[in-house]
Parts: sequence; structure tokens; C-alpha cells
Amino acid sequence: MSLANHLSSSISSSSTSFLGQDNRHFNIRPKNLLLPIKKCGTCRCVATPEKIAYNTKVSRNANMSKLQAGYLFPEIARRRDTHKLKYPDAEVISLGIGDTTEPIPDIITSSMAKRSHALSTVEGYSGYGAEQGEKLLRSKIASTFYGSLGIEEEDIFVSDGAKSDISRLQVLFGSSVTMAVQDPSYPAYVDSGVIMGQTGYYQKDVGYCNIEYMKCTPENDFFPDLSTVSRTDVIFFCSPNNPTGSAATKEQLTQLVQFAKENGSIIVYDSAYAMYMSDDNPKSIFEIPGAKEVAIEISSFSKYAGFTGVRLGWTVVPKELHFSDGFPVAKDFNRIVCTCFNGASNIAQAGGLACLSPEGLKAMQEVIGFYEENTNIIVETFNSLGFNVYGGKNAPYVWVHFPGQSSWDVFSEILEKTHVVTTPGSGFGPGGEGFIRVSAFGHRANVLEACRRFKELYN
Amino acid sequence: MSLANHLSSSISSSSTSFLGQDNRHFNIRPKNLLLPIKKCGTCRCVATPEKIAYNTKVSRNANMSKLQAGYLFPEIARRRDTHKLKYPDAEVISLGIGDTTEPIPDIITSSMAKRSHALSTVEGYSGYGAEQGEKLLRSKIASTFYGSLGIEEEDIFVSDGAKSDISRLQVLFGSSVTMAVQDPSYPAYVDSGVIMGQTGYYQKDVGYCNIEYMKCTPENDFFPDLSTVSRTDVIFFCSPNNPTGSAATKEQLTQLVQFAKENGSIIVYDSAYAMYMSDDNPKSIFEIPGAKEVAIEISSFSKYAGFTGVRLGWTVVPKELHFSDGFPVAKDFNRIVCTCFNGASNIAQAGGLACLSPEGLKAMQEVIGFYEENTNIIVETFNSLGFNVYGGKNAPYVWVHFPGQSSWDVFSEILEKTHVVTTPGSGFGPGGEGFIRVSAFGHRANVLEACRRFKELYN
Repeated sequence: MSLANHLSSSISSSSTSFLGQDNRHFNIRPKNLLLPIKKCGTCRCVATPEKIAYNTKVSRNANMSKLQAGYLFPEIARRRDTHKLKYPDAEVISLGIGDTTEPIPDIITSSMAKRSHALSTVEGYSGYGAEQGEKLLRSKIASTFYGSLGIEEEDIFVSDGAKSDISRLQVLFGSSVTMAVQDPSYPAYVDSGVIMGQTGYYQKDVGYCNIEYMKCTPENDFFPDLSTVSRTDVIFFCSPNNPTGSAATKEQLTQLVQFAKENGSIIVYDSAYAMYMSDDNPKSIFEIPGAKEVAIEISSFSKYAGFTGVRLGWTVVPKELHFSDGFPVAKDFNRIVCTCFNGASNIAQAGGLACLSPEGLKAMQEVIGFYEENTNIIVETFNSLGFNVYGGKNAPYVWVHFPGQSSWDVFSEILEKTHVVTTPGSGFGPGGEGFIRVSAFGHRANVLEACRRFKELYN
Repeated sequence: MSLANHLSSSISSSSTSFLGQDNRHFNIRPKNLLLPIKKCGTCRCVATPEKIAYNTKVSRNANMSKLQAGYLFPEIARRRDTHKLKYPDAEVISLGIGDTTEPIPDIITSSMAKRSHALSTVEGYSGYGAEQGEKLLRSKIASTFYGSLGIEEEDIFVSDGAKSDISRLQVLFGSSVTMAVQDPSYPAYVDSGVIMGQTGYYQKDVGYCNIEYMKCTPENDFFPDLSTVSRTDVIFFCSPNNPTGSAATKEQLTQLVQFAKENGSIIVYDSAYAMYMSDDNPKSIFEIPGAKEVAIEISSFSKYAGFTGVRLGWTVVPKELHFSDGFPVAKDFNRIVCTCFNGASNIAQAGGLACLSPEGLKAMQEVIGFYEENTNIIVETFNSLGFNVYGGKNAPYVWVHFPGQSSWDVFSEILEKTHVVTTPGSGFGPGGEGFIRVSAFGHRANVLEACRRFKELYN
């Protein structure tokens, strides 16, 4: 609901006497009122004395007003829903939001069901868990993903997902830090920084003032030219990348860590797609020597085990990482986790533990393999149509180039003509303009059908 | 781990040559270094060349450094663990943290187990849910708790618990608002405000600068004298109250709403214990006419259904609530929820739905009834010992007065002599000094045993 619509529905021009009365009691400031927009239509306009909207005297957080439109994915969902209303009989296929579609392997759900049942027994009940996550799960995450890298149980903070942790990290950093992001990148990094007041206003085609956008394009093989990047306090870096699907090599990440060390920056490394890597690139930033002194790593079970709805992730904050005064970052993050969060659901954590058993790991690998086959189908389709196609090899995202075209226009044309939902590249930052992201998360039949429709449209 | 301990373990005085090398590459600023503390003990002190700690150049968030000690409850857990190490054979009973102990009714856990299993089927799988919660659950919460109060499905935001929502609300409000809290109060309100930068520094026995502490004492029947309270943007108010156990009457809440309206303030009303109310007081702030224009309500399944570990709560942001410029608060909160959160676990939401079925409501009422019996036992015990005892009637917390004594001293004495963990009143704010909170969450046998030990100590 827009502000104008909202007010127009609750303000009437005949409410002046009520307004006068309210004014005495509640100090309404009439300067904020908008003129009513009368909806006439077939004309039964009878001015009824409606109640005038009361406004508190609390100023809206100025940072919130800097945000552009809605958060990307709810905006796409809104457009999809509008499209469905327009074409109620169309079979709409969603390759947009990056939402997993395949069932969670039974070994994992059985474990969650078992934990659920146990909660109704005296022996199996548990209340508040450790805010940082259950000891066994923290330990399993450390050994499974960081076995030989010197990351220990106490460095792992289990969470309800990467998106929540990105925001908690921003709260930790506060409003005074400066940040850099790959451009394009997952919008939560930028948006949470805007909300915390780290940025200035948004400029069309440029982005938010005070953010260092590190252009990642086919020209630089999707790795930024660090010699042109200004120093910032925090560097968000996602590899394999969402949305471009590209993965940084060991040499590139070594450069990045070196760059952070020289600048005294903190890298927030998002490895949520690491298990999709088929090349021999690092799966964790901590494979790079010295990274523990400059990096935090965020990851998640969402795209490995289909936990997008179950909600479970983790963040690694190595004890070696310090603020400029020597204070360990992990100690402040621990305080944030204890004060602003109360731990991930114990049932989800039981699922996480099952994921990391030998059978669970095998089952996750099968789910990932399925989505990788989808990715190949999509890549081949766009290749066969003569597009320049990026990503796909190390990530479940295919990044298709439509040079010179507006991403939202391409998004709309595809939706209108094929009933397939994609994601416009410009939603990921100014550097995504001219691209669309096609997600490989979908049932096989839907992916095949979407590709058939793409061929029909672009052949 | 303290900072000094941390650094002492990684700094050695013989590391100068390494330091010199590091300095060239990484711009370490040696001024931040602490002198090493050598641990000798049985004396095998061989100075080995250790690596000096590297510090980034990112300044620690100044707001984090304002926070006093650890968050209250982890601090209590820490002291409990220390006590257990000291007395390994003692049967330590915890009536401290307010953690539920009784199994979740089977009707609720079965529903969660069913949802878990369904996630491994094609038909039952679901990925990302709506960030605001599942439609049916939002609707059920609205009708169950706010049936006749004009609160609708779209006003309800389902969350992973009240503590997380308190922080998300603080992020929504930003750093420029002023806040008031009942003193004493649940520490998450104040601590999250400090983290967001809404306050100045902490002064012993006074609290944080720029927070309006509304004293709630036996003298004012635990309801603040609003004529002495300064205007703030936000007023946190919890009823039935944690920790005092007192509940505000309809007349008192009408005063509070009127006070907020006159000042243009927003009340954040925490009703997490409303179902424990045995008096005829309002269970929701929205029972007070006009409250929808000045109040947000936070609540939770934690203390009703034993969901402290499952994690499920909700926040009501009525569409009638506006910032000073007329912008609906709900619209900004929705943006926060979409950007900084990805919805509560779908399995927990299935549990929430089961809670609100007729059988689920009955089952929750039985759990609550059990804890109410515990409360009576604790109240009677302290009454029989001649203490002034407050709370307990409308909340699972008993607030015991130890006039003239330090709360932490009383806490320590009780722990030392009875092996029972309570919560020191001063942990809830300066106004809690001289009280301890005894939680009624515990197995019956433990509550009875704790009360026996209290009688032994104080008779």
C-alpha cells in the first residue's frame, strides 16, 4: 500500500472539526497531511466524516527512507503474483528467487522429526540452547568444512540463516564503517548497510553514496581490479558468486586477502554456494594463508540441504580477527548473538547435525548434483541461442547477457511471453544492468519446459 | 576470554624480527600491543618466537564498548558453570534464567514431526516462506489473541522469538530515537538500544545516559508515576512484567496509552507472559481504545508452549501506527523483516499452528497451570519466611525483597549455600537492586527441593 493510498483511505476533507478536536489533545501537526484523493468511479461520492489519521511524533529512521523500492525478492514475488492475476491459466515457472524445490533427504527430515517427538518427553526436552548453537553441531561444522584450516568449534556461530547473520554483522560494525561490495551482488549486503546508516543516498545507475562498488564484469572475468578499489573497512565478497555464478581462484583470493591486510579491512566472505564448486577453487576463504586475521565467513544449509524454509546457517569469526584496538571481533559478535538472537531452532539444529553425518553428506551431494544438472540444461539452452552465458559451472546460477538492454525490460518480456520468472541483473546493483540471472532451482520438468519456452522466444 | 589473556597467549617479546617483517607488509601499529604476561608455573619458560597479533584498521563500534559486562543470562550461566566446577557433586537447581523445563504437549510436537517428514516429499516440501510468516498462522494469531480488537492478519509478523524482534525494532527505529524502560526490566530492551547508539555511557547505580528509567517499586505498586516521566520517542513496557511479575490494570494501561498519545510516543508492549494472567487485567495493549495508533506488541510461544528452544514469536504492528510524517511503521518493519530476516522455521510455524488449535490451546493452558502451581509454592515459601514477596500472581516470576542488600551478593549467597541459581534484581536495571527474581520454570521436584533449601537457609 503506498503512503498516498494509505492516507487517502483514512482522510476526508470533511474531518476538519475532528481534526480541530484532535489537535488540542494530541498535538497533530496538520502540515503533514496530504490532500485526499477522492475515488469516484461510477460516482457515489458522499463525503462521510472519516477519522483523520493520527501521527506519532517519532521521526522515521532517515536511513530507511534511503532504501530503493522493496527488497528485491519480495518485489519479484509481487510481480509474479500480479502476472498470475493477469494470466490465471498460465503455468508460471519460477527460476527467479533462488528457492530450493527438491525434497529434503529423508535421513535429515527423520532426524528433525525425531527431535520434535523427543521434545514431548522429559528426557528429550530442551529449552533455551546456547545462543551460539549446540556444541556438537558447532564442532561438526568446524571439522566438516574447515577440518585442516585451524577453525575451531568456538569460532563457529550457528544461526537461522545467512541473511540474518549479514544483518547481525552490520549491527556489530555499526554506522561508522565504510563498505565495499562486488557489483553485482546479493542485495542484503548493501541494503543492511543502508539501514545501519553506513551510506548516503541512492543515485540512479550509480548506487548508494559511500559504498565502494567493485565492478565484476566479463571484461575482468568477474574479479575486481583491486588496484582501482578504494580502501573500506568492510569488504563483502561472495564466491561462488550470487548472481554471476563465477568463482574466484586461489590466486585471486590470495590477492584479496593481501589487499585486506594492506588496508586493514575485514572481508565478509559469503560461501553459501561453496559445495556447488566443480573447479578446483577454494571452498573457504580460510584456505588462504593469513585469512583468519582479516576474514569472517558466512554460510548456510539452505542451498545444500533445501533448508531455505527450515532456516539454518553459520558464521565463522576466527579468534585471530581483531579490531584496530586489538579487541577480538568474535567477542563483540558473541555479545550481539546473545543480546539480539536466541539461537537457531533446536529442531533445525538436529537437521544440521544429520546433514553432516556420512549419509547426510552423501544425500546433500545428490541434491546438489540434481541442481547442477539443471544448471547444465539452462547453460546449454542459452548457449545454443547464441547468448553470452556466464556462471553455471561453480554455482546454481546462470548469468545471461543482454547487452544494451534494461534488465527489468528483459525480465518483463520473458515473464510476459514465456510465463517464466527470472531475476533482473540490475536488482543486484548497477553492474548487473543488461543481465538476467536464471536460477537452477526447480523441478526438472519445469526447467525443461522453461528452456523450451526460452528457445521459442529467442530462436 | 579476556582481551589481556587473549593477547598474552599470542604475543611474545622475542617476536620483534617477525614484527619488523609484518610491519612492512601489513602496517601493524605497535602502539596497541600489550606487554606479554609470561605464564611460568613449574618453570619451563623458553621464549619461543611467536607470531604477533595482527590488528585490522577497523575501529570497534563505540556503542559495543558502552555495554556493561556480558548479557545478563549468559553471565548467570557462566557463574552457574563455575559453581558446578567448584562443587562437582552438588545438585544445582536453576530457577534463574526463566527457561521452560516441561515437555511440549504431544499434539504440538507431533505436528512438527509431521511437517518435518512432509519436507522429504514432493507434495509436502516448501522452501522460502513469506518473511512475515505463513498466512494461516498469522491469521490464527490475529483471531486467537486479538479476535475482537481489530488486529488483522496483515498486522502480525511471525518471528523466531521476542528477543530477535526487539532488536529488529531497534534497527527499525535507528540511533536517533530516545527510549524509556520500566526499571527494572528485561535487559534486551536497554542493551539493544545501547548497541544501536541510542544511549550515552553507563553510570553505576544510575544506568545509561539518555534512557528514561521509569522506576517500578513496591511504593508505586510497580506502575511508574507518569507525571514524572520525560517524553521519549519509544516506551518499552512489559506486562505481566519480567522481572517483577506485576501486571498493569486497565486503568493504568489507559493512562499509559494517553501518555503516549499526548507525547506522540510509540509503546513497545511486551506481552510474552499474558496467558499467565489470573487477574482481570488486559492481556493485550490493544484492549485499550486508541492503542493501535501508538503501540506495537511483541509476544512469543516460548513461555506458553515451552518453545524457548523451538523459537517462535510474533510482533503486532498495526497499520494505524504512523511516524511523524505519516509513514506507516508497519511498512518499514516489513522492509526490515524482508531484508534482515527470512522468516521463522517452517517446522516451528507448524508447531505454532498446532498450539492454536482447540486441543493445542487446552494443552498450553495445562503447561501454564503447572508453572502457576510452582509459582504458588515459591510465593508461599518466601512469605512463610517473612520476606516481602511481589509478583507471582499474574506471571511465572517471584520478586523477593532483600532491602539494603546487594542483589549480586544475595544471588551469590543463595548459590553458595543452597546450590540454587536465581537472578539478581540489579541485572534488570538499577531499580532492581535489593531484589532477586525466582523463576517458576522448573520440574516440581526441583522447585520443592529449592524451597526446602531456602527454608533451611532463611529460617
